[in-house]
Amino acid sequence: MSAIDTEFVDELASYAGLARRAAAAYLSGDLSPYLEVPATEYLDRGGKGLRPALCLATCSAFGGDVEKALPSAAAIELLHTAFLVHDDVEDDSDLRRGEPTLHRKYGPALAINAGDGLAVVALGALRDNERALGRRLAARVWSEFDFMARQTVDGQARELGWRRDGRTDLTPDDYLDLIMKKTCWYTTLLPLRVGALVGSRGALDLEPMLRFGFYLGAAFQIRDDVLNLTGSEAVYGKETLGDLREGKRTLMLIHLLAAASPSDRRQVVGYLALDPSQRSSEVAEHIMTLMDDHGSVAFADEFARGIARAAGVAFEEAFAAAPDSPARRFIRELVTYMVERDR
Amino acid sequence: MSAIDTEFVDELASYAGLARRAAAAYLSGDLSPYLEVPATEYLDRGGKGLRPALCLATCSAFGGDVEKALPSAAAIELLHTAFLVHDDVEDDSDLRRGEPTLHRKYGPALAINAGDGLAVVALGALRDNERALGRRLAARVWSEFDFMARQTVDGQARELGWRRDGRTDLTPDDYLDLIMKKTCWYTTLLPLRVGALVGSRGALDLEPMLRFGFYLGAAFQIRDDVLNLTGSEAVYGKETLGDLREGKRTLMLIHLLAAASPSDRRQVVGYLALDPSQRSSEVAEHIMTLMDDHGSVAFADEFARGIARAAGVAFEEAFAAAPDSPARRFIRELVTYMVERDR
Repeated sequence: MSAIDTEFVDELASYAGLARRAAAAYLSGDLSPYLEVPATEYLDRGGKGLRPALCLATCSAFGGDVEKALPSAAAIELLHTAFLVHDDVEDDSDLRRGEPTLHRKYGPALAINAGDGLAVVALGALRDNERALGRRLAARVWSEFDFMARQTVDGQARELGWRRDGRTDLTPDDYLDLIMKKTCWYTTLLPLRVGALVGSRGALDLEPMLRFGFYLGAAFQIRDDVLNLTGSEAVYGKETLGDLREGKRTLMLIHLLAAASPSDRRQVVGYLALDPSQRSSEVAEHIMTLMDDHGSVAFADEFARGIARAAGVAFEEAFAAAPDSPARRFIRELVTYMVERDR
Repeated sequence: MSAIDTEFVDELASYAGLARRAAAAYLSGDLSPYLEVPATEYLDRGGKGLRPALCLATCSAFGGDVEKALPSAAAIELLHTAFLVHDDVEDDSDLRRGEPTLHRKYGPALAINAGDGLAVVALGALRDNERALGRRLAARVWSEFDFMARQTVDGQARELGWRRDGRTDLTPDDYLDLIMKKTCWYTTLLPLRVGALVGSRGALDLEPMLRFGFYLGAAFQIRDDVLNLTGSEAVYGKETLGDLREGKRTLMLIHLLAAASPSDRRQVVGYLALDPSQRSSEVAEHIMTLMDDHGSVAFADEFARGIARAAGVAFEEAFAAAPDSPARRFIRELVTYMVERDR
């Protein structure tokens, strides 16, 4: 992480800490330990807090008090955690943030319900916006969350469906369409749009946020997929090659299917036709070697850097109305962070 | 169903049909088939539609136009369906409405995501309340949904936790506390309260609805548990003895644990200590015989009828401000239906 300066890391941790404390407060009180204990577990394990940090910093960059965006930032972190819990069950993953996934620890039933609980608590947090922002602006924020959630579950369905149907005919454009829905809305677009709404008290035109949010979220997701292949398990906190074991249609896999020789391609197609439980570590590592041989990882890495450069340009447009400030600089730095991070 | 008159059955079907069509409309349009197909499946299989019918009839009984309560009724049916989908995964049930459960048909990943999608679409439907009811009343309705959802996931966590911890020391009071959270809020209290809010344009005191809704919901849940033991699979649509196989802490099981001789009790405790996969049909049928021998089913049946009588009294208090009307009579009839129904 040499390219990331420590001031940025401290600011990220500070924003994330604010949001995490607010999120934890919404989970405490009247809930049974059978819900509260599993629901707080991933939050207690930490996490980067990128999403709420982006929301709070955007609010600040457009002249708002971060306090005003705190219920929304807490809701973002809670909903993100809800998605992680359900994703881990859906993918049957082993590790999250360096420890066993929730369903491994508490069983699938309590884990699925904890994910539901996190989503419910997230939406409950948004009710505080009525007091903080007034009924009109609170309703606009709610409508942003509603739209985002619909995109996210729809994107998740597409990805799961591609795997279930054994799709091997996908293009990089299919992948970009998918992550716009599955990742960008909740990771970058919603935090940016809600932060800008709250910071400008509803005055800002949100249109230019679309382009910036898409580039930023795409850079994030592609880097995430690369880290899943090449990252250190201890730093990254998820099982290495997990995506490959799950047959996730990443940019690297799509590249490999297009670039491989007919015989290599047959091996990859055969691998993807297996039931996930039959995909051994040895075979997954062989597919990884094929990706290296065909430059699939380098392709994805360069793709992410290209998109990050485009995000840098789109940032200037989206934040044209925001004067120079620490928060604005933090968001500009985040563009670099997305493709340089190793966790 | 001899005690239920056909006029009531027709009215129930008519309310349910209205809500189901509205619910289906919210699910169509921009969603991927990987989400839309599994998400609409349980709705297409029918279902009684008790919950949205109660909401629409209550709105009408308090002088409102049922159209005004339609987004809320659709949200109730969608959210109910979301709970069913996740419950079926959590309990690993085989049948729902006479056909394989969603996770049996599409796999757990797409099923869990379809449940998430149904919940998201449900909350999206509530946004239409802003136009239909104005921002102020819409916010009150939203806050009712928020409170209810928190109660429901919390109650579900408790029930799953009781099973996971092998609890055999529960009393009928524990059971009633549980179903107040797990069942009554979303089955009766929310439909009543939202119907009354919309029908009276926010003017009605909702306090007396608490008692009526609790009695009505408890009668419903106890009858449901009894049907799971004694109902015909073809009519009831779920696998018979499913609750017993899952080790669900029903009133009958709690009664049996208290009423059984020490040696019979040891058998029951031993049965509950088994992993659900080890609980054979034969042993479940033996536990069922013990319940018959000790009058546990008759006890629960009489308990439900007693609560239904209390509901009849509480109804008059809760609906004191509503003049006689077909809708008011429908709700009064619903009290009887709760304990007489066989599906």
